[in-house]
Amino acid sequence: MKATILSVAPEVRMVDITHMVGAQDLMEAAFHLKSSFAYFPKGTVHVAVVDPGVGSTRKPVALQLGDYFFVGPDNGIFALVLDGSEPDDVVVLDKPAFWATETPSQTFHGRDIFGPIAAHLSNGVRLRDVGTPVESMQRLHWALPIADEQGIQGWVVHIDRFGNCITNIHKDTFDSVFDGRTIKSYAGSGIISGIHNTYSSVETDEPVVLFGSHGFLEIAVNQGSAAETISIQKGQPINLVFIDQPENVVHES
Amino acid sequence: MKATILSVAPEVRMVDITHMVGAQDLMEAAFHLKSSFAYFPKGTVHVAVVDPGVGSTRKPVALQLGDYFFVGPDNGIFALVLDGSEPDDVVVLDKPAFWATETPSQTFHGRDIFGPIAAHLSNGVRLRDVGTPVESMQRLHWALPIADEQGIQGWVVHIDRFGNCITNIHKDTFDSVFDGRTIKSYAGSGIISGIHNTYSSVETDEPVVLFGSHGFLEIAVNQGSAAETISIQKGQPINLVFIDQPENVVHES
Amino acid sequence: MKATILSVAPEVRMVDITHMVGAQDLMEAAFHLKSSFAYFPKGTVHVAVVDPGVGSTRKPVALQLGDYFFVGPDNGIFALVLDGSEPDDVVVLDKPAFWATETPSQTFHGRDIFGPIAAHLSNGVRLRDVGTPVESMQRLHWALPIADEQGIQGWVVHIDRFGNCITNIHKDTFDSVFDGRTIKSYAGSGIISGIHNTYSSVETDEPVVLFGSHGFLEIAVNQGSAAETISIQKGQPINLVFIDQPENVVHES
Repeated sequence: MKATILSVAPEVRMVDITHMVGAQDLMEAAFHLKSSFAYFPKGTVHVAVVDPGVGSTRKPVALQLGDYFFVGPDNGIFALVLDGSEPDDVVVLDKPAFWATETPSQTFHGRDIFGPIAAHLSNGVRLRDVGTPVESMQRLHWALPIADEQGIQGWVVHIDRFGNCITNIHKDTFDSVFDGRTIKSYAGSGIISGIHNTYSSVETDEPVVLFGSHGFLEIAVNQGSAAETISIQKGQPINLVFIDQPENVVHES
Repeated sequence: MKATILSVAPEVRMVDITHMVGAQDLMEAAFHLKSSFAYFPKGTVHVAVVDPGVGSTRKPVALQLGDYFFVGPDNGIFALVLDGSEPDDVVVLDKPAFWATETPSQTFHGRDIFGPIAAHLSNGVRLRDVGTPVESMQRLHWALPIADEQGIQGWVVHIDRFGNCITNIHKDTFDSVFDGRTIKSYAGSGIISGIHNTYSSVETDEPVVLFGSHGFLEIAVNQGSAAETISIQKGQPINLVFIDQPENVVHES
Repeated sequence: MKATILSVAPEVRMVDITHMVGAQDLMEAAFHLKSSFAYFPKGTVHVAVVDPGVGSTRKPVALQLGDYFFVGPDNGIFALVLDGSEPDDVVVLDKPAFWATETPSQTFHGRDIFGPIAAHLSNGVRLRDVGTPVESMQRLHWALPIADEQGIQGWVVHIDRFGNCITNIHKDTFDSVFDGRTIKSYAGSGIISGIHNTYSSVETDEPVVLFGSHGFLEIAVNQGSAAETISIQKGQPINLVFIDQPENVVHES
């Protein structure tokens, strides 16, 4: 894929965000993209190719959101980046003149379509030139957490090499319903009180809930692995409960 | 190695094809090189350093094939790229003036010899200047499959992270003997009929034989791992049998 | 981190030395840094972020040693590079104007502090401008081996993918006490005679002690894995004994 990018845009800078996304793990890819895209210089083109549906009917797309471009399959990989909004513009990639070949592989669109399209965009070709506008994109039910006045339910989307378990609950979502209440988090075999700022806010080997450097809620264990200590696996739900809420409910009944 | 390359050619573009080749796995390295080299811009210098014989009598070489240069040990790593042909030119690297040091490490020629030579070539130094021409290169028996009118025997040279098993049987080899006949493939514990175009041509969890995006024959399982499902390991033989051929044989007997 | 670097220094060359350092493994990170830094072009800025104490009282620093700059936490990660000496200059990073944000994450100083500082240094900003000079840096007891006239005790700081076990005993340390004597090395379950130049100096599957391409003493097995064959784990001690010394002791008694 880098080879076909360089063939179109010999001077382009390429940065690998991660090579550690699990096979076909859209949820994890969506998390990494959301965590990092806005730190790049304006105008950066992000290519994301976790593509279990390659060769099927899923559409290849390119889109613009604010100062950034994104290229990849329309399979929900951009759902956390979009965060429930529509992109500023989105086109389906149906113009073989901008591909590496008019007869692309059925199994590797990254090399034959997405890479070359990203390279053309980085060369200054306009989004509307490389494809045809479409109305809407795929939405995936897992992408966003469920938040109401009683709490928030999210999912573990990534477990890093330290065993920290990162959820899809962003600080913005949390702030919109938190309202200064007391919190208990249910995750794996653990029930964890409160939200802290650093791993070392709790004793060694104790679990802690905090917002990580990426802005997402994270379950960790100070100097240890939360995944091992309290048995959390990727995809598992995590529930934040506002514990003064049940009391109110009892009072009302 | 990148440090010694940059010291010679500060402006050179470097792209890592893969960091996932198994320890001393020449066969897998040869596959990755063959799969990717021709997608790079013309003039690209490819450095390949899987080098179990470093410090022994194997020769360090640089060669030209069409529009590309290759630098590495003469141990068969270039066998699939050459595909049975001789390179356009090949030199043994015997001129310490182009190395990082006149007393190279006995265990890491990548850093001290191959990297700097590649950097000089990318700077425009000519092949004949960095070494002395040699007549021939090593050939390895495993590198090419055996094809005749009854079928093709190849080997699994790479198992990717999805469990797809890629063989050393290239579509060109296949096309030269296929002749439109009916095929059965014997691989691991599986007997698989026909050759398809996409993973999803068969039911979920069913095995399928296809030519991958790299042009090599591949054993896969739709939405699953062929390596696990039908017990295939790297280095294992795979046999393609033209099944109208045995019938002829029976007829003849 | 690469994103915040590029935002400050869009033209900078970035090279990844390794992504394989174990979680929080300062000792291994210190080894990789020492093994590679001096091969890079003069003026290179090395950023090292193995940072178990992030968010605690450990100081973020930048330093100069000869022709190279280093940026990272003051937690011993630079101990092997410094090799017992003081750097030419060292500053604590206390000037938020050179960070990515005035309110850096409590858990990821690489992205918010170290990356941007390194980018400013590569742009030509002076060390004294990005921080305030400090007198001394952390020293770690494990960083340097213990050498006397009877032998040398070191530690295994890295086991590579081939199972070769690299120690913190540098050839310079060895040469300072060796004096041409006969040597036995005790490592894991192995007692190994002498020091050789290449893996193939001993029979296949036999252990061998040599100085690797990085200059550090290494325990290997020809065509095999020393870690497996003689049960060596990272952090384990290795003892080099000068065996004419015990004889002298007996003679004296």
